[in-house]
Amino acid sequence: MSRVLIVGAAGMIGAKLTVRLLAAPRLGGAAVDEVMLADVVAPTAPVAAPFKVTTQAVDLAAPGALDGLVASRPDIIFHLAAIVSGEAEADFDKGYRVNLDGTRQLFEAIRHVGGGYRPRVVFTSSIAVFGAPFPEAIDDEFFQTPLTSYGTQKAIGELLLADYTRRGFMDGVGIRLPTICVRPGKANKAASGFFSGIIREPLAGQEALLPVSENVRHWFASPRAAISFLIHAAGIDGAKLGDRRNLNMPGVSATVGEEIAALRKVAGEAVARRVRPGPDATIARIVAGWPSNFDASRATALGFRADASFEDIVRAHIADELGGTWVH
Amino acid sequence: MSRVLIVGAAGMIGAKLTVRLLAAPRLGGAAVDEVMLADVVAPTAPVAAPFKVTTQAVDLAAPGALDGLVASRPDIIFHLAAIVSGEAEADFDKGYRVNLDGTRQLFEAIRHVGGGYRPRVVFTSSIAVFGAPFPEAIDDEFFQTPLTSYGTQKAIGELLLADYTRRGFMDGVGIRLPTICVRPGKANKAASGFFSGIIREPLAGQEALLPVSENVRHWFASPRAAISFLIHAAGIDGAKLGDRRNLNMPGVSATVGEEIAALRKVAGEAVARRVRPGPDATIARIVAGWPSNFDASRATALGFRADASFEDIVRAHIADELGGTWVH
Repeated sequence: MSRVLIVGAAGMIGAKLTVRLLAAPRLGGAAVDEVMLADVVAPTAPVAAPFKVTTQAVDLAAPGALDGLVASRPDIIFHLAAIVSGEAEADFDKGYRVNLDGTRQLFEAIRHVGGGYRPRVVFTSSIAVFGAPFPEAIDDEFFQTPLTSYGTQKAIGELLLADYTRRGFMDGVGIRLPTICVRPGKANKAASGFFSGIIREPLAGQEALLPVSENVRHWFASPRAAISFLIHAAGIDGAKLGDRRNLNMPGVSATVGEEIAALRKVAGEAVARRVRPGPDATIARIVAGWPSNFDASRATALGFRADASFEDIVRAHIADELGGTWVH
Repeated sequence: MSRVLIVGAAGMIGAKLTVRLLAAPRLGGAAVDEVMLADVVAPTAPVAAPFKVTTQAVDLAAPGALDGLVASRPDIIFHLAAIVSGEAEADFDKGYRVNLDGTRQLFEAIRHVGGGYRPRVVFTSSIAVFGAPFPEAIDDEFFQTPLTSYGTQKAIGELLLADYTRRGFMDGVGIRLPTICVRPGKANKAASGFFSGIIREPLAGQEALLPVSENVRHWFASPRAAISFLIHAAGIDGAKLGDRRNLNMPGVSATVGEEIAALRKVAGEAVARRVRPGPDATIARIVAGWPSNFDASRATALGFRADASFEDIVRAHIADELGGTWVH
């Protein structure tokens, strides 16, 4: 039997992870018998669940905020909570307070439980820990030179995770997620939003503006693949990771042109024609500093599996978010 | 005219940096007209100096400890203070409190001065940010996977330095020092102590025990070279560094056997014979996880200069610490 704490449970990934556990309540070979959902606003509890569910509103960065939940000794802790990239860049103090201090406080709470407590901690990091210029494909030993405060905070979280693990306080796995695509819901103002928007909006019958050249290449995983990474990370044998606890996740490297071609192939020409040029020099400049391709050999050898193609990413969106159909 | 703050001024490097400034009171092309010496115990003020000297005892990790010194707007800040590797491993809280919180508080104090204040900050990092297994030579893009809490704290300091610099709060340069050899003074219990001890003790007429095989290779710089790195880093054009503010310093890669051969060549067979085998499995195991060789192309291109050979390292010790002679 396994007790699970999800920190950041109200976000897109947290909500999908919860749904996945409801459908298949097992982690690392053990049945899940309790899930604690925590976020800055109390997550919505599922109506019916095959395990005990509790929800709690906590400010991750408030001193002692997570002490009570952690003291109940969950076996598996997913740490998904973060101030996102744009906000961490706009509000320097808030980004450091939540993404650095909050992460450290969670790890400290775990350390102070004592009595041999050593939970599996799955931490969602990001490819934002890397900064241009890049090699053709970023391998497992490429260095961390983030070009955002968010990326800096994630890189620090990774270092703490590895040290707290090495010291025996927890059994951490950090996973650097590719850009999630197709992100469901409304368009947002994130600079990366168009990567999803040019698939999501046309499938919903709306036009989408493309702010960059079709040659721009980026690194993607579907929400479905991202959840599979979390589930796999929860169950992986820590001994196989040794002291190198942070992993580039596999993904799909695709240009924007390849995204549109996949949309055309899956949903037809009329849908693909809803993507219109809308050049934006600011977005183009930001995106030019982002990674475009990885050699994720280590994660692949450890059993993490990416989407097979960008077409599969489009199909996953249609199946998981649109009930299997779209606006033709 | 240039005003200088040295944080960690009472340590070996800080004291030697002070002596160097007394002898040649210029940094980055400007005359030094004030030096503020700070450490956890008040550093000793020099008897006579060609510039104003103030000394202050500060606990780097105490909230606001450095605010007053930083508010006086020094042009150049050397941040040399740290809990050393062995102590940071033995006392987890103290290491994080000083090496992480203290560094962050210094950077925050700088950020909060405001009014366009943007000092050059030279931060001494360490090759302890790297962890085995290693390539044959660690290049400028090899990743940080420290295997000690000290290395973790230094790697975090590097990330903060780069982000605070990118955000325009300061103009930081992080330099990863090789193992300093020959470290003057008494033998200590650091696992790395023997690298210096097998040169220093024989030159002083004493026997020295060698705890590892003569095949063990490591990466060295003399105290003299380390001070030259600090001086060069204080004056380097930040624009040449771009966003990658942390640099592997050049050094001398030598095996223990090559160390002894250099000692023999410089000081003679009788001195070299004072090194005796004294195998220590614990030390051998620790040292096996340390870097042994670097390709420091970037720092070399930026004008940092290492010792020319291990013989030069031995000669520098004899010249700088022993008045040009030794016990034959």
